[in-house]
Amino acid sequence: MASVQVFGSPASAEVARVLTCLFEKEVDFQLIRTDTYKGKERKPDYLKLQPSGQSLTYEDGKKTLVDSRAICLHIANTYAEQGNKDLLGRGTLERASIEQWLRTESEIFNQPSSTLVFYLAFAPLKKLEMDEEEVKRSKKELERVLDIYEKRLDEVKYLAGDKFTLADLAHLPNTHRLMTLVPECAAMFKERPNVMKWWEAISSRQKWTRVVDLQKEAPAIA
Amino acid sequence: MASVQVFGSPASAEVARVLTCLFEKEVDFQLIRTDTYKGKERKPDYLKLQPSGQSLTYEDGKKTLVDSRAICLHIANTYAEQGNKDLLGRGTLERASIEQWLRTESEIFNQPSSTLVFYLAFAPLKKLEMDEEEVKRSKKELERVLDIYEKRLDEVKYLAGDKFTLADLAHLPNTHRLMTLVPECAAMFKERPNVMKWWEAISSRQKWTRVVDLQKEAPAIA
Repeated sequence: MASVQVFGSPASAEVARVLTCLFEKEVDFQLIRTDTYKGKERKPDYLKLQPSGQSLTYEDGKKTLVDSRAICLHIANTYAEQGNKDLLGRGTLERASIEQWLRTESEIFNQPSSTLVFYLAFAPLKKLEMDEEEVKRSKKELERVLDIYEKRLDEVKYLAGDKFTLADLAHLPNTHRLMTLVPECAAMFKERPNVMKWWEAISSRQKWTRVVDLQKEAPAIA
Repeated sequence: MASVQVFGSPASAEVARVLTCLFEKEVDFQLIRTDTYKGKERKPDYLKLQPSGQSLTYEDGKKTLVDSRAICLHIANTYAEQGNKDLLGRGTLERASIEQWLRTESEIFNQPSSTLVFYLAFAPLKKLEMDEEEVKRSKKELERVLDIYEKRLDEVKYLAGDKFTLADLAHLPNTHRLMTLVPECAAMFKERPNVMKWWEAISSRQKWTRVVDLQKEAPAIA
């Protein structure tokens, strides 16, 4: 039996981040999930969102963690010698750059992208009230962040350098939602050629597409 | 929260039978599953077998059951007034016919079909020893059973009459495995036109294809 256990649904962005990391590191694990099926028709795919924090728990006998980015760091540290060894870099300098861009995702990318997914993909379907002001602010902020990325990705192929790392990985779940569910936000990515090239490179990785497949099958969380 | 809980993986034939029944009856339920992912590459689809009894547990607050056919009967009885009302018939006579064909599946179809899936799809991959004698006997038995079905299905569209019922449903998981994983057994179905017409009718039902989709995503049980 695998000693690593993840509790949660792959439909959650937080869980998806951790699963991608486990696949990249080729770690044996168990996914323990409770999926709720409604008797009537299956909800459409675009309802597979996680607007307000689906629970995620990671356990490996020694540690219990609940934050997806902390979990990814823990996995990359614990399994340094297996799977993708570039995820957290091979030296101190590389690692510093990765950790910086990982913080960038968490501090400036996550907020506008999660907000836009919530209001533009999720809220209309659940008939929740729209906060136009918040959407406007988030769009502006996302544009600003993507401008920074566009410039950065003119110098390097991936955010932290020339290799795919945790910094890129952390962007996958929310960007995937924006690209597939929110056309007006997808357009923001598409009009920035370096960002778009980066997105194509990171989203076509087989470890990630495997998680997308898992998400397709999960019933809606919403 | 749904009061019906199913514990098990959809990759199991037993679990698949119960899920199909719950979908047909449009019952709200929770599927609680533990899927084990291996660090190395995903196993190929044809390993998704359940040769030796994957655990299945059904709970609904009042009852805890573990036999898939007993669970299907319990669901059809408990939720008589919702979803597909023909599953267990609408009258005493119909019900008697359904129960008889359900026993036929359990008593004469299940054994050869499970045995053939085990030896012809599963055993070679796990490098388990082949029991040629048992395979030969099971093939002969399956031919005999399909001859009975071919005759029956010349008179009626479905096993218990003119409607899809639990009797047909119970055949789905094992037949699906034979049709998709064991060409020499698929041939036995294909050369019997009534059986084949029946298989096409029952296997194209959306409630079943939904279970097949769930199975595709489940990691191999083997």
